[in-house]
Parts: sequence; C-alpha cells; structure tokens
Amino acid sequence: MSAFSDSDRGYMARALQLAERGRYTAHPNPMVGCVIVKDGIVAGEGWHERAGEPHAEINALAAASGKAMGATAYVTLEPCAHHGKTPPCAEALIEAGVSKVIAAMRDPYEQVAGQGLAMLQSAGVVTELGLMQSSAERLNEGFVSRMTGNRPFIRVKVAASIDGATAMRSGESQWITGAPARNDVQRLRARSGAIMTGIGTVLADDPSLDVRLNAIETGGLQPLRVVLDSHLRMPLTAAMLARPGRTLVCCCGIHDDSALQRAGAEVRSFGEPDGVVDVGAVLDDLARRGVNDLLVEAGRGVMGHLMEKDLIDELVIYQAPHIMGSETRGMFRTPSWSTLADRRMLEITDVRRVGGDTRITARVKR
Amino acid sequence: MSAFSDSDRGYMARALQLAERGRYTAHPNPMVGCVIVKDGIVAGEGWHERAGEPHAEINALAAASGKAMGATAYVTLEPCAHHGKTPPCAEALIEAGVSKVIAAMRDPYEQVAGQGLAMLQSAGVVTELGLMQSSAERLNEGFVSRMTGNRPFIRVKVAASIDGATAMRSGESQWITGAPARNDVQRLRARSGAIMTGIGTVLADDPSLDVRLNAIETGGLQPLRVVLDSHLRMPLTAAMLARPGRTLVCCCGIHDDSALQRAGAEVRSFGEPDGVVDVGAVLDDLARRGVNDLLVEAGRGVMGHLMEKDLIDELVIYQAPHIMGSETRGMFRTPSWSTLADRRMLEITDVRRVGGDTRITARVKR
Repeated sequence: MSAFSDSDRGYMARALQLAERGRYTAHPNPMVGCVIVKDGIVAGEGWHERAGEPHAEINALAAASGKAMGATAYVTLEPCAHHGKTPPCAEALIEAGVSKVIAAMRDPYEQVAGQGLAMLQSAGVVTELGLMQSSAERLNEGFVSRMTGNRPFIRVKVAASIDGATAMRSGESQWITGAPARNDVQRLRARSGAIMTGIGTVLADDPSLDVRLNAIETGGLQPLRVVLDSHLRMPLTAAMLARPGRTLVCCCGIHDDSALQRAGAEVRSFGEPDGVVDVGAVLDDLARRGVNDLLVEAGRGVMGHLMEKDLIDELVIYQAPHIMGSETRGMFRTPSWSTLADRRMLEITDVRRVGGDTRITARVKR
Repeated sequence: MSAFSDSDRGYMARALQLAERGRYTAHPNPMVGCVIVKDGIVAGEGWHERAGEPHAEINALAAASGKAMGATAYVTLEPCAHHGKTPPCAEALIEAGVSKVIAAMRDPYEQVAGQGLAMLQSAGVVTELGLMQSSAERLNEGFVSRMTGNRPFIRVKVAASIDGATAMRSGESQWITGAPARNDVQRLRARSGAIMTGIGTVLADDPSLDVRLNAIETGGLQPLRVVLDSHLRMPLTAAMLARPGRTLVCCCGIHDDSALQRAGAEVRSFGEPDGVVDVGAVLDDLARRGVNDLLVEAGRGVMGHLMEKDLIDELVIYQAPHIMGSETRGMFRTPSWSTLADRRMLEITDVRRVGGDTRITARVKR
C-alpha cells in the first residue's frame, strides 16, 4: 500500500463529508462522496443523493466541467463497473481523462468487488485503495452489513431512566425523555430503511413510526415499518397504516389477512422456530428488500429476544436523569440469562447531552 | 456586599484548595483553608488537618511567622470565636495584627454564626463575607447539613449495569464494575464519617466496609459502620467486626445483645414506625455523633426505603458498560411508586470515566 499524504487525507475527509449529505436520501444505495483535484486545486465535488440519480463521481465530473483531464479523483467507495440504473462510473472517469483514482474502500458486494478498480487499471488509470478505509466502512456499515452478511445493521433505540426503567409496570411511559431526545430519534428513523416494532407496542401505544420532523429532508423517503405479530393481531385502525410509507406485518402460519391488506398493510408469514416469528428470516427478507439500516423501537420482549439472539449491533440509549424505581419495566426481557456470565459487554462509542437527557451510543461486543 | 477583585478570587480559590487537603482527616470538623496576603504577596498558608489540632488560621499565621501585621486573611469559613479544643482563631488574627479578614461563608452553626466576624469587627479589623460562598458551602455540605439540618449529608453509591441491574436475581454481583471504580469507592468511604448498610447485605456479602486503600491517608480514621438490622440478626462472625473502626448495629425492640457487644459491636434499639428501624432516628443519632457525610452502600431494600422517604442527597452511580437483562435486581425497591409522577428527578453534576466504567454523580431534586 502506498503512503498517503496529508493532502490526500484532507481531500478524502472532504469526500466523506460530502457522502454524509446522502444520509437521509441515498439508501438503499450507499452514501458516496467524490472530490476531483487538479494541480492542487479542487476542480469538482459531488455526492450521491438518491437511488436512480447520478453517482457521486458523475456529479463531481459534471462540476469539474471538462477540467478533469490528468486529475486525481478521491472517492469514498470503489467506482462501479456495471450498468445499473446509470452507466458505470469507472467508464466515465476514464472518458474524462482522470489519471489517478484513490478509493477509501472496495465495493463490499463480493461479486463486483475490485472490478471497478480493474477497469480503471486496464485503461491506464493509477488506482490506490484504503485511504481512511475504517471511516468509510463505518459510514456505510448498514450497506456493508447487507452486502457481506445478508442482513441489515441493527440499531436499537431505548428511552430509559438512569435506573434502567422504560415504563411503569402499568405501561405508562409518556414521556420519559424530553422533546429534544424525541426529535433526535426522528433522525435515527430517517437514516433507516426500516423500523421494527412488536405487536405489543402497537396495541399499547399505537405509534406512527414515521419521519415527521420537517427539518429532516428525506425527499419523501419513509422507512418501511415492520411489525412482529405472530398471531396477526394487527388492528385495521392502527395509526401507522394511515401514515406515509409502507407497513409490513410479519406473522406465523396462515391467517385471513385480506382486510389488513385492504387497510394498506403487506402481510407475510414466517416460520416460528422459537414459537414466535423467525426474526432471522425477517432480517433476510429485509436485506432482500434493500434495507441497510434497521432501527428497532420496541418493548422489552422484542428487544430482549434480539439481545438473547445476539442480533443487535448498536444501542442508542436516551437516558433521562430520573429514578423510576422497582415497579417498572426494564429494557430487555432475557429469560434465558441467569448468571453474570450471560451478560453482554458494550463498547461505548459516543456520549452526549441531548436536551436534558444523555444519549449513549454503544456497540455490542461479539 | 463589596465587589471582590480577581486577585481576591484567586486567593480564596487557593484557600479552598488548601481546605480540601483535609478531606479524609478533618471530619467531624469542617475543612477549612486560609491564605494570608501582605502587600500582594502570600505570607502564609494553612489548613485544618485534624480535629484537636490547630485550625487553618493558626497554621497560616504560623507560616507567616510575624509577617501578618496589616495583612489580609482569606479564610473559607468564618473564624471561630469560642474556646474549644483550641483558642479562638478570631483572637489569634487580632493579636497578629491582621487588618482585614475575607470569609467565604458564615459559620453554619446558628448559635455561633457571626460571632467570629463580630469579634474581629469590634477589634477594628475590616471583615467581608461571601467571596466564593457557594463553592465553600459545597465543600462542606456534610458539615452544613449536620449543623443546620441535624442530619448528615446522605450519599448513596450504586454499581450497576447500563440497564440498571445491580445483581443477578441469585444475588450474584461480583464484579459488575472494575477495579478502578472499586478503588474510587474507597475515596467515597474515606471522606465519610459513617457507612450504612442493611443486614441483608451483611448476610449475603459479608462486606468489610472499611478504608483499605493505602494511597488514602486518613491518619487512622475509619468511618463508623452502621448496620440496619431490625431483628438483630447480625452474625458474631461478621467480617466488619474484625476490621479497624467501630460498628453500630441498629435494631428495634429488646434483644440479648451481650454476645454481639463482646464481639465488638455497639447495639442500639430504635423505634419502628414503618415496621423497620426508624432511619430518621438513626440519622439524628449519627448527627449527634458528629457524622457529616454518610455513605450508603446497601441493597435495593434500604436504598429504596431512603429514596421513598426523600432522604437521599446525592447519588454516585458507577455504570458498567454491560447489559444484564431482566433476571436481575434493580437499584431501588420502591413499592409505593406506581405512576410516573412518583419518580424522582436528578440534577447530574458530574460524569466521568473511571476505568472502563462511567461514574455519574447526581443530586436528587427536591
């Protein structure tokens, strides 16, 4: 691997920053940014905004308007080599006369990985790989998870008191955290291809589970709502069915779902290896639908089931500075854990104040 | 109130810093620091190290060795005017020829408050009061609580997972937090006049509840251990009875406590308004014994009882980055709380990493 210079790192950092502009709009595609540099001057910048629209490289070449000859392109993901909804970016870079391409990471989709770089190399373009690779991978961890693991990156959101309660025993939970924390959750939703909950939460709280903060520009995208509902108890009058975006109800066995379908829901039946909907099969299904990031906003039953099955990648905990005591519900129902050895260890990656609450972001160690 | 200058604030900040050197040794007396300044130069510094030994002002005057004539004394607490174990400091300041005394706060003991300043004034010394008062009050909040409220400042220590569990259902809890957090608890103990626990914790964990970190210099002081033990089940073989320091066992009714007394414990019987030892009466007793700061290290029963009775001033939560799940014990048993309106609000005053854990310090809002 070649040694990259500080200016290389600066341009790639800028490309990563550009890529992030697609956070709420690019999925199911990855976020990608591109900076074209000629003689130490930025000739063009671009990012990928929306599936079906031009890729980052094409936008950057357009911005450079003919000044890309002999330039270096910094791109956060290996340029594509295949004809999809748009022509291959590698071809466009070659045609524009770019002499060098530095990519942060290889395309994670194994069947195309390396082909973009190979196409460039065979046209005489110098290629380098791996500049700020870990930042680029983290940026698109959902896309990487889907491409390499056939399942979305699973992020769970919890609102709890400092003593770990998410609701009173009665279910009373509005509101534990403040309005700024609830607005922040809207951003978690907007970056997610789907939001999962359980039928218990639907029946108790009737949530909308949509993005409804005007400050977030998703270009009309709404996450797919996914309800785990083994016995198909989903009410025809559920609030989410009347909201923009689609709803997938996951049940077991055979039910008459015609009324629910007419009410706007898609209903699918899955296996039930644990007596409840096979979450692994649901995740497969979501990956096939192009869901990179799955946000889970559910009660302790669903949350505990995912935790016991080691399916959670990241926790986002909004911790309110309250003590709620013992007559309450906890975050995760984990009936199979009986000793300290069963606990799961976290790596805390970020802690910050959000209004009067503390937001703790953590990875589950595996 | 006069306007204080930046250099006034600098000298008082130094005096507060000196006072803190008595954190582990001065109690039951308050921590006090003193800086004597002559012509813009520090002539002497002092602090109060140990009850029965000279007060801060006397140590500072000794350090100034005759150069205090016409000087200003900055002292974190109003100088005393009474003959206790040592002669009054106000008298010593007058004799040394100090021309001005700036005190951060009045003596909180109502029957002497203001008398030290009055003695100085009647001798022609200029006095000023209130410079950095809130810092001075916070430094000695335990002493202030005992003087003005007849009870110690009550600090509870909790070690819990991020989902609020303090033990598995079986009681297994060693170790949730890491060694650095456990060492930090030793510092909480060393600054406390007493440590309270419940008989359940004694029977389950047999804790020593003493200060045993060599790095903490308490000059041999050990906090009084206080065990809430309504039915006097305290074992004669309890580990704490063999440790340096005294143990007070608080029961209800009349028991044959002769063997326990021979084993080294002091046994006292209290009323039982709630069917358990009257904690309010225990706190009165501890205040009379000179306990400024009480640390509670107990199970969810004692902790919840104190929380329900609004007796907790401060929480120090060591939060381990783990998920322990539902088959666990929580921080506070609060059977009387049934709605969100019952919860207690906290003001978080400090958050920091201690080893791999997070230490959250918070006040209970009243």
